[in-house]
Amino acid sequence: MDKKEIALNAHKEWAGKIEVVSRAKVTNRDELAVAYTPGVAEPCLEIQKDESKAYDYTRKSNLVAVITNGTAVLGLGDIGPSAGMPVMEGKCVLFKEFAGIDAFPICVDSKDPDEIVNIIYKISKSFGGINLEDICAPTCFEVERRLKEMCDIPVFHDDQHGTAIVVSAALLNAAKLKGKKPEELRVVLNGAGAAGISIAKLLLSVGFTNLTLCDIFGILVEGGEAITDAQREMAKITNREKRTGTLADAMKGADIFVGVSRANLVSEEMVASMNEKPVICALANPTPEIMPDKAINAGAYIVATGRSDFPNQINNVLVFPGIFKGALQVRAKEITESMKIAAAKAIASIVKDDELNPEYIIPDPFNPCVADVVAKAVADEAVKLGINRI
Amino acid sequence: MDKKEIALNAHKEWAGKIEVVSRAKVTNRDELAVAYTPGVAEPCLEIQKDESKAYDYTRKSNLVAVITNGTAVLGLGDIGPSAGMPVMEGKCVLFKEFAGIDAFPICVDSKDPDEIVNIIYKISKSFGGINLEDICAPTCFEVERRLKEMCDIPVFHDDQHGTAIVVSAALLNAAKLKGKKPEELRVVLNGAGAAGISIAKLLLSVGFTNLTLCDIFGILVEGGEAITDAQREMAKITNREKRTGTLADAMKGADIFVGVSRANLVSEEMVASMNEKPVICALANPTPEIMPDKAINAGAYIVATGRSDFPNQINNVLVFPGIFKGALQVRAKEITESMKIAAAKAIASIVKDDELNPEYIIPDPFNPCVADVVAKAVADEAVKLGINRI
Repeated sequence: MDKKEIALNAHKEWAGKIEVVSRAKVTNRDELAVAYTPGVAEPCLEIQKDESKAYDYTRKSNLVAVITNGTAVLGLGDIGPSAGMPVMEGKCVLFKEFAGIDAFPICVDSKDPDEIVNIIYKISKSFGGINLEDICAPTCFEVERRLKEMCDIPVFHDDQHGTAIVVSAALLNAAKLKGKKPEELRVVLNGAGAAGISIAKLLLSVGFTNLTLCDIFGILVEGGEAITDAQREMAKITNREKRTGTLADAMKGADIFVGVSRANLVSEEMVASMNEKPVICALANPTPEIMPDKAINAGAYIVATGRSDFPNQINNVLVFPGIFKGALQVRAKEITESMKIAAAKAIASIVKDDELNPEYIIPDPFNPCVADVVAKAVADEAVKLGINRI
Repeated sequence: MDKKEIALNAHKEWAGKIEVVSRAKVTNRDELAVAYTPGVAEPCLEIQKDESKAYDYTRKSNLVAVITNGTAVLGLGDIGPSAGMPVMEGKCVLFKEFAGIDAFPICVDSKDPDEIVNIIYKISKSFGGINLEDICAPTCFEVERRLKEMCDIPVFHDDQHGTAIVVSAALLNAAKLKGKKPEELRVVLNGAGAAGISIAKLLLSVGFTNLTLCDIFGILVEGGEAITDAQREMAKITNREKRTGTLADAMKGADIFVGVSRANLVSEEMVASMNEKPVICALANPTPEIMPDKAINAGAYIVATGRSDFPNQINNVLVFPGIFKGALQVRAKEITESMKIAAAKAIASIVKDDELNPEYIIPDPFNPCVADVVAKAVADEAVKLGINRI
């Protein structure tokens, strides 16, 4: 069987990768009278009096909605809400398997940001958190921003922030390994879509202040041509030396390259033109901007990719289970920028100083302690901010 | 501990009566590569090509959404969507425990029928069926009617049709026990809200054509005063003798009384004024229109209530697990009137002729064969109608 057949057969056999089961057994009249009428009226009335009691008497305390409109699913693009569901179910499996969180997939059949926001808001009350998934840019920015304002539960667009947090964790450890402070390293980031802009913002927040963004037209510079509002905004706060030119121009003398762009965009010459001991995060999937062996040949000191068959896999399964687990543990009202920074630092901290080496700057996705370490850091930060409910 | 404390403690201990679990295990890279990227792209692409493949590759084939807006929860009224959730979770438990169906509770925070319809429609694609629950009249009529037109999956408002199906089953067996055909029996139905009107419609469909409805102002008659459109419609097709007067007037000489109204509305005198061997279905909860012992004293031959502590409990848990199970088994596009009739006859058939007696006209809710018998009848009818997908 080829890989396609294996995947299709497995999915057919699973007949859905998630299942809803009962925590309350109802095998006789007495049990029925507690779990359903008339007993069930009591928790209803308690929640009516005090809505926060929903955390005590319903599944809200451990429940995340995984919501897509199917417009940017994996690398497949706009395949529609139904076709996106296997990915959403997969995401729910990862929530459960990596952090014990109940996650339920919902597809919203709309491309209108107003409508998407309204639908999600109006069904949000029974969830403890909302994980937005595979919604195309720029819709995803607006939907997340508005929902964060409206909802009193965490709203998190994993495609943006999940990757940003792992990349930040990886680069914090890369800087440590190079013996430099983040602000001493010049970073070039290629790809100014949803993920790229989110990575850029968080890198700035964790200290990588010498940062230049590139898109398909080259270096983003204040006053230059930018396609989106988000790019214009980023042009103002990055590239303080006002460089212009191509990606190749940007990379000359740079310390770190981060790509969330396309296969094979980076040549060995471009890597060779960087500063000494360059760091390459080539995250294009499945084929990176430059293959690890080529990058090493050209002098790269550290290489990270999105792939599981090379060292240093940048995988956001290191983030979302733990960040939601932490938020749910304290019934947090939101996931803030400082909670994301706490998550990045927590992930970086899992690689101990005596283990840190060019082939191990980021924990393995299956390292069983990751979710709890991240959760603790995130929960502590929420408590520090006073946005916790318990 | 009193009953209130028992119910609250149990709900706190459950911390939610449902849970989302994984059917796919992901414990290593290979499993991750099948259940998630890159393997998951294959079922996505299959569903993109042919949307019906969602039944094969996602949980749609066994998944029902239990949706409320919290405006008519139990007897508690409009307690809001969050406070309604313990009931919705309870309903999901019953779906799972009685029929193995995965059901997921969703609260929609809206009282606007247009908005409710739009929200449910736009999130409906990943479900195999929609169970509307505890939505107040007349909103529930419009929401159900429009969703049935728009969706290509079953949409079923259990508060209306579930009760209607069990009452029809009970009265079919009551008629059999009395040795009469349904059309030979005069039925008086008190309560012309959502449940009452739905019961009336289905009773007409199964043959109880001599039917009179009453509301708080007395007998509904064509050309008389009716409050709602639905009541006007019913006044045209019931009460062919054009009776007028009070409930007491209607009950004189009647064979069957069905109440979905209020406690203690029916006196012993009213029962005594009925035809010989009268049948009383007093479904007001928790206190029926007349208590069974009083009704028997006054000459009632058969008494049914909504309560588990008397014989002949009219409980819609006899219906919704089986009717959805049957619909899902054949991936039905809707639940039609004839599928409801098939369900009523199937429930009635479970009580064998040699078991049938005034204290046993309807199966026990915990009779383990009910859901499958109902499911088979409903699935067969869907196939007969050609609204099945497999």
